[in-house]
Amino acid sequence: MAIVVHGPGEASRGFASSLARSLGLELVAAESKTFPDGEAYVRIPRDRVEEALVVHTMARPQDRSIMELLMLVDAARGLGARRIVALAPYTAYARQDTRFLPGEPVSISLVLKSIYAAGASVYATIEIHKEHSLRHFPGRAISIRPFTYMAREAGIGPGTLFLAPDLGALPRAQELAGELGGDYDYLVKRRDRVTGEISVVPKDIDASGRVVVVVDDIISTGGTAARATRSLLDAGARRVLVMAAHLLDIEGNVERLLDAGVEEIIVANTLPGRSHPRVRIVDVAPLAGGVLAREGIITRTDT
Amino acid sequence: MAIVVHGPGEASRGFASSLARSLGLELVAAESKTFPDGEAYVRIPRDRVEEALVVHTMARPQDRSIMELLMLVDAARGLGARRIVALAPYTAYARQDTRFLPGEPVSISLVLKSIYAAGASVYATIEIHKEHSLRHFPGRAISIRPFTYMAREAGIGPGTLFLAPDLGALPRAQELAGELGGDYDYLVKRRDRVTGEISVVPKDIDASGRVVVVVDDIISTGGTAARATRSLLDAGARRVLVMAAHLLDIEGNVERLLDAGVEEIIVANTLPGRSHPRVRIVDVAPLAGGVLAREGIITRTDT
Repeated sequence: MAIVVHGPGEASRGFASSLARSLGLELVAAESKTFPDGEAYVRIPRDRVEEALVVHTMARPQDRSIMELLMLVDAARGLGARRIVALAPYTAYARQDTRFLPGEPVSISLVLKSIYAAGASVYATIEIHKEHSLRHFPGRAISIRPFTYMAREAGIGPGTLFLAPDLGALPRAQELAGELGGDYDYLVKRRDRVTGEISVVPKDIDASGRVVVVVDDIISTGGTAARATRSLLDAGARRVLVMAAHLLDIEGNVERLLDAGVEEIIVANTLPGRSHPRVRIVDVAPLAGGVLAREGIITRTDT
Repeated sequence: MAIVVHGPGEASRGFASSLARSLGLELVAAESKTFPDGEAYVRIPRDRVEEALVVHTMARPQDRSIMELLMLVDAARGLGARRIVALAPYTAYARQDTRFLPGEPVSISLVLKSIYAAGASVYATIEIHKEHSLRHFPGRAISIRPFTYMAREAGIGPGTLFLAPDLGALPRAQELAGELGGDYDYLVKRRDRVTGEISVVPKDIDASGRVVVVVDDIISTGGTAARATRSLLDAGARRVLVMAAHLLDIEGNVERLLDAGVEEIIVANTLPGRSHPRVRIVDVAPLAGGVLAREGIITRTDT
């Protein structure tokens, strides 16, 4: 039977424990330490493993987290696991998914190839930046879309206007509008002909009087969403919320959004939590458990 | 023609520039930066590369350095390199080369497999902790022994007593004694029957009046060599030197050795330098260049 093993850190522990509960599987915490020279060490405190779902998120410092994930996969392999599923709730380096300039690396490919080389045959994550990146994983890879689940958990009602920050991200807004009943659009920059000021507004839909949810995969510096929020409130939007799968650990990003007038920031529990009364963290591990079971990746042991 | 590309940091730059000079190859410095979320970025500022010798050492923080090395290899691959040699003067995680306890990873295997998966067909390093670890690299791998070269550069004369810290490390001392003319032995712990005190002394040879060089692959905390130095000086050794390929960045290790009475610490330039009048850093890049050329790994372009 499979076990759920998690790496060090609150985010990995929290996600894994909820996942294990939802799948009816046993949870095992890896031991971990840092050697005097700064090298990482992990250990799965077991004598044998049949099948392992290794959960470790790629939180800051990302390179250390990636190394720990590789180590956990190899440790499971060493314990005789027939099948190892690596689940990183947040996949780092996903935004370096192409060579924007000659001489650049495709960093995400290195992360995924290394995990496969370590011995994982399946890779699962929550909402990777671009789904096509998963082709770099030579085994089976899946990115779980959390937005509809998150919106329902956060009590977002019908009639909401879902906005993507750009055309490329429109499918996220479209899916939400379709599932929850609402409208969708994406944001464009517009320059005021008189003042020359730039505002960020929905391309086609009037936001006036609406409840608006700006939806994106990642909250990074929060700059774009903050600018959009100001423009939307200027344009008469009733309430503006920001929903993202991953809230990155970048100094001041939460404050930047709240200062701009964002009423609530809704994020998944894929990275270490940012405790704030207006940050709502939705536990998406039960969703992930359901998807892994439905896809036949892990067998649910309902009791 | 091949180029030598190096990653960020003084140690990688210094080793690579000496190596490029010794091989008559062009040196290219990679661009590098850190994104606001802490992710690394590197770029090889070229439009095309035929063959690349990528030089980047695995200095602290090791996981970041490893990721940068992978990125450099992938960047070279993206520029069309037919052949990529990855050279890390210091190989991190080499001491986790076996599962000492069930449930542990073989961390060194993950490092080497990832470098191969990134696209390097050859891996070269200076004095890896255990040579057998290189079998984890699916391509060709080579560990260059620097000790004889270092001893000559440091002016160590015949008649020296070379001591390994344990039986497993004896071949290093044996090689030096053979090449330079001298004796060799290894250190054992001995308890004084009267006082109960433990000393660390050569197993067979009397150190009294001798010039002694304690030789090891790594200076970590320096604890063992410091204890040995005290015992050797107590036993009448004339001078005690410590020679190692890699001087790790661990708080207080240099001071611990000098306080114990070590006259000079001789190390290779595989890691960031520790500026101290009694630390002698030997540039082993010309040695590495010679070995790579002799082994047919890189073609020397003598001018």
